[in-house]
Amino acid sequence: MKSDIVIAQEAKMEPIMNIAKKLGVEEDDVDLYGKYKCKLSLDILKKNKDKKQGKLILVTAINPTPAGEGKSTVTVGLGQALCKLNKKAVIALREPSLGPVFGIKGGAAGGGYAQVVPMEDINLHFTGDMHAITSTNNLLAAAIDNHIHQGNSLGIDPKRIIFKRVMDMNDRSLREIVIGLGSKVNGVMRQDGFMITVASEIMAILCLSNSLSELKEKMGNIVIGYNYSGEPVYCRELGVQGAMALLMKDAVKPNLVQTLENTPAIIHGGPFANIAHGCNSIIATKMALALGDYAVTEAGFGADLGAEKFLDIKCRSGNLKPSCVVIVATIRALKHHGGVAKDALGEENLEALEKGMENLRGHVENVRKYGLPAVVAINRFLSDTDAEVELLKNYCEKIGVEVSLTDVWAKGGEGGIDLAEKVIKEIDNNKEEFHYLYDENLSIEEKMNIICKEIYGGSKVNFTADAMKAIRELEKFGLDKMPICVAKTQYSFSDNPSLLGRPENFEITVKEVRVSNGAGFIVVLTGNIMTMPGLPKKPAANIMDIDEDGKIVGLF
Amino acid sequence: MKSDIVIAQEAKMEPIMNIAKKLGVEEDDVDLYGKYKCKLSLDILKKNKDKKQGKLILVTAINPTPAGEGKSTVTVGLGQALCKLNKKAVIALREPSLGPVFGIKGGAAGGGYAQVVPMEDINLHFTGDMHAITSTNNLLAAAIDNHIHQGNSLGIDPKRIIFKRVMDMNDRSLREIVIGLGSKVNGVMRQDGFMITVASEIMAILCLSNSLSELKEKMGNIVIGYNYSGEPVYCRELGVQGAMALLMKDAVKPNLVQTLENTPAIIHGGPFANIAHGCNSIIATKMALALGDYAVTEAGFGADLGAEKFLDIKCRSGNLKPSCVVIVATIRALKHHGGVAKDALGEENLEALEKGMENLRGHVENVRKYGLPAVVAINRFLSDTDAEVELLKNYCEKIGVEVSLTDVWAKGGEGGIDLAEKVIKEIDNNKEEFHYLYDENLSIEEKMNIICKEIYGGSKVNFTADAMKAIRELEKFGLDKMPICVAKTQYSFSDNPSLLGRPENFEITVKEVRVSNGAGFIVVLTGNIMTMPGLPKKPAANIMDIDEDGKIVGLF
Repeated sequence: MKSDIVIAQEAKMEPIMNIAKKLGVEEDDVDLYGKYKCKLSLDILKKNKDKKQGKLILVTAINPTPAGEGKSTVTVGLGQALCKLNKKAVIALREPSLGPVFGIKGGAAGGGYAQVVPMEDINLHFTGDMHAITSTNNLLAAAIDNHIHQGNSLGIDPKRIIFKRVMDMNDRSLREIVIGLGSKVNGVMRQDGFMITVASEIMAILCLSNSLSELKEKMGNIVIGYNYSGEPVYCRELGVQGAMALLMKDAVKPNLVQTLENTPAIIHGGPFANIAHGCNSIIATKMALALGDYAVTEAGFGADLGAEKFLDIKCRSGNLKPSCVVIVATIRALKHHGGVAKDALGEENLEALEKGMENLRGHVENVRKYGLPAVVAINRFLSDTDAEVELLKNYCEKIGVEVSLTDVWAKGGEGGIDLAEKVIKEIDNNKEEFHYLYDENLSIEEKMNIICKEIYGGSKVNFTADAMKAIRELEKFGLDKMPICVAKTQYSFSDNPSLLGRPENFEITVKEVRVSNGAGFIVVLTGNIMTMPGLPKKPAANIMDIDEDGKIVGLF
Repeated sequence: MKSDIVIAQEAKMEPIMNIAKKLGVEEDDVDLYGKYKCKLSLDILKKNKDKKQGKLILVTAINPTPAGEGKSTVTVGLGQALCKLNKKAVIALREPSLGPVFGIKGGAAGGGYAQVVPMEDINLHFTGDMHAITSTNNLLAAAIDNHIHQGNSLGIDPKRIIFKRVMDMNDRSLREIVIGLGSKVNGVMRQDGFMITVASEIMAILCLSNSLSELKEKMGNIVIGYNYSGEPVYCRELGVQGAMALLMKDAVKPNLVQTLENTPAIIHGGPFANIAHGCNSIIATKMALALGDYAVTEAGFGADLGAEKFLDIKCRSGNLKPSCVVIVATIRALKHHGGVAKDALGEENLEALEKGMENLRGHVENVRKYGLPAVVAINRFLSDTDAEVELLKNYCEKIGVEVSLTDVWAKGGEGGIDLAEKVIKEIDNNKEEFHYLYDENLSIEEKMNIICKEIYGGSKVNFTADAMKAIRELEKFGLDKMPICVAKTQYSFSDNPSLLGRPENFEITVKEVRVSNGAGFIVVLTGNIMTMPGLPKKPAANIMDIDEDGKIVGLF
C-alpha cells in the first residue's frame, strides 16, 4: 500500500493558473506562489456577488474515536465525486498547523486518493498565512509589554493580561514562562505563556471576517486584559490594529490548490476547534460559493462541537446558508462507541454496532434541528462484514436518513459518486429553512443550556463559582451578547470523554468563561484545554529529510 | 519632497517574470510570489557554471555616523547606473528584518529614486524566508528541550545550552526568561532568552552555504550547548537537521525583485553584522554573478567590520573573488569624524573635514591590503560647499583613489553614472590578485591580532580570563580553525565608539569568545551585543494602516 506522500508525489498536477481560469477567475485576481499554489483576490467576491451562489455542504462526523473516521478524506473525495458527475464543485478546507507536523500527527490534507496537493507545501509553510498570524499576534503582545514598560498610561494590570504570545511549534517548555527578567531595560517581569499559533484569537478573527476592514476592526476589539480598575483593555487602545492589518494583508486572501483529480480546493484558516470554532474562513467559503455550484467544507471534531459551531458561529458571522450536512462514520468507530476496545474492532460485533449507532443517530437528529438534511457517509474498511453493513443500512432506513458507503481513500472521486448523488438529491428535496439554534442575545447561561439540552442531550449545565463570576463580569461590560464557543472533550456528547455512544441524563460543568471579543464569541470551558502541544519521545522530525534535488521523505 | 513609500508606490514595475527572462532565466526556474516577486531555482547556478561569471563589486562605507551614509542607496543606484551604461548588472542585497519595521527604523530597501520594489512586501513578509528561519531555529530549540524532557540521553547540561529561540519582533520582554514552569509535563525549567530572527545562527548558515546539502550539513554542525562532561553537543546528535532542511527548502532559493528603474535585484539573507558576518547569501551573490556581467553587493556596518567579514568570511566560504570595493561616505559624516557635532554638520568646516577624511583613508588602505582597488562614492548633500568638495577631491587624488560625487537618491541611476564609469575603469586596470587577510589555521589570538593591527590600526589585543578560557576550550575540541567574526562597535575602528576619525595606538579588549560552528566562524566579542531590540515609546506600528483597497500608509 502506497503512503500518502508517495501518492501525492505521483500526482499529475495542473498549473494552478489553469485551475483558477477554469473557475472563471481572471489572471489579474491570482497571485501565484510557485506553480501549484496561489492566492485569490477578494475582488472576486465583489465581481461575483450578483451571480447565483453555490450550495454549501458541510462535512462533519460522529464523536471521534481512536479508530479514525476520515472526515477530511471524505470532504476531498466528495468534491472529487461531484466533479466526476460534471458538477462545478469547489472544496474549502482548513489549513494545517506547522507545529504538529513535527510531532506525531503528520500532515493534514486528506488521505490516499482523496488528497489535496502539493501536500508537502500545504503541510509546511504553504503561503505563509500561519506565519502572518504569528507575527500579527506577537506584534500585539510586544505592544502590550512595551506599553507597560513605557509608562503604562492605560493602567494595564500585568497580572491580568490574557493575550498571549504564540509560536507555530510544539514546544511545551513555553507553556508557562516568566518574561522580563534581568535589568530594567528588559521590561516588566510577569508570568506569561505561549500558545500554538492556531490557538491565537487572530486566527479565529481571520476566519470570521468578511473583509480586510472587518478583520482590522475585529482585531481592534480584542480584549487583551484588564486595567487596575478591573475594566477591559482593548487592542484598539494600543493603536496597533492598523499595523496588524498590514501584516495580514496577504493572509486574508484565500489559497487555491487542487486535489489529486485536479478538483479546485480553497484552503484557508484553521482555528482550534475547542477554544475557537474550528472552521476554515468565511472568505474562503464564500469564494467557493461564488466560484462553484457546490462548495464542500468541513468543521473540526465531531458534529456536537464542529457542526454546532459552524452553524451557530460561522454561519451567523458570514450570513451563510448551508444546504446539507454529511456525517462521516466508520463501522469500526461505531463499534467503539458501542463499547468495543481498539484492538477488537476488526471482529464482527453486531450488538456493539447497534449500540454505537446511537451516537450517529444523535448527530443526525441534531442536524435536523437546524432545518438541514443529513446524509451519512460510511468510510469502508476491509474488516467491515456484510452483516454489519446490512445492519447499518437498515438502521439508517429506520431513522430515515440516507446512507452511502464510500471508498474515496482507495478510489478517489469514483468511490464517492453514490454519496455525491445522495447529497444532491437531499439538497434538491429539502423544504425546510435553515435557522440557528439559539438567539445570541440570550444570557450566557440560557444559551449554554440550550446547547447542552438540544445538542448534547444533557439534562443540566452547572457553573462553578469562578465561571459565574466571569459571566457577571462580562455582562457588566456588555460582552455577553455573542454566540457561545464550547471547549469540551471531542470524544463524547458529554464533558466526560469516557461516556461514549449516546449518553443521557448527564450534567455538564462549566469551569471557566472567557470572551474572545475580537472573534465575537464567548468561550465556555468544561475543562482545561492544552493550547501548546509538546513533541513526543520520537518526533516525526527525526525521520524527515530532503535531498539536494528536493526529494522529501518522512512527511506523512 | 516625496517620501520613500510614495516614490515606491508610483513605480512602474515590470512583471518580475519579464525581468527574469531578460536575465536569461527559463520560466521553469522561476517560482512566482505574486506578480513582482519570485524565487530563483538553484538549477540556474548549475546551468550557468561554465559561462563567464560577472565581476563582483562590494559596496561598503566609512564608520557609520548619526549623519547617515546611504550605503544601500548607493548600492541600488550603482546597479541602476551600470544598466544605464548598457551593462548587464544585477544587484544583490540583504533582506530586511520584520521586527524593526515596527520600531523606529522603518524599512530597508534603499531610498529616494534608488530603491528596490515592491518595498511594502520586501519590508513585510517578503517571500517568507525570515519565517522559515524562525521555524527552523525554533524546531531545533524545541527538540533540545524535548530531548532533556524525554530522558536526556545525551546528558545535555540545561545550564549550558547556548542555542536560543528566536522571534522576528522587537520584544525586549523576551530577552531574559524562564521556561518550563508549572508541572512536570511542561518540561525542564531553565533560564533562556529569545533573540531576533536575524541573529539566529541559521541565518548565518543560510548565507554561508553553497547548496541545500551544505546548508543541512552546516545546521547539523551547530554546537547547541555542552553536556555534563563539558563536551560540545551538536545539532546532528538530535537528528533534526533533515527536518530543518525541509523547512528551509524554499528559503534557500534567492528572491528576485527590481529597482525603480527595473534593474534586477536579488535580495536574500541578512544576518547581524556583529555576532554574524552581515552579508547577503553566497547563493544570491553567485546567482548575480552567473546572470550579470556585474554584481553589486553590500556588507553591513563600516568597512572595518562589513568589508573585512565579507572578504575573510563570505568570500572564503563561497570561493568568491571580488573585483572592486566602493567606499561610501558623505561630507557631513566625514566632518563628524573630524569632531563636528550632529547639529553643526550643515556648516562649512574644512579643518574638521580634513581631519575626518583620515577615517576614509584608513578604509581605502585596508581594501588595498586584499589586492583590491577602491573607489570612493560621496553621497551629495545640499549643504556640501564647493570648498569642501574641492578639499575632498584633492585629498583623494593625494592618496591615489578615485572619487565620485553621486546623487542617486534624487536622480536614480543617472546620478551614479560617473561612479559606475570609475568602478569599471578600476576593475579593468587592476593588476593585483585578491587574497585573504589571514590564514584561518592560525590560532584565534594570532588571527585576532592580525585583524586588529592590519584593519583597525590598533596596537594590541587584550583577552580577558573568560575569553582565554573559552579559546582554550575551543582549541581542545578542535573548534578554532575557522575565520574570526568580530563583534565590536561599528562607530569606530577601535572598540570604543567615541574614538572617531583614524585612531592610533589603541588596544582592544576581547571579553568573550564563542563558536558558531554551523556557520563556520569564531565570534570574538569586545562588548555586550544586544540581540533582541525593543520597541520605542512611539513605535512606527502606531502610525501604520491599510485600507480595504490595500493602500498602505506609515511604512517608511
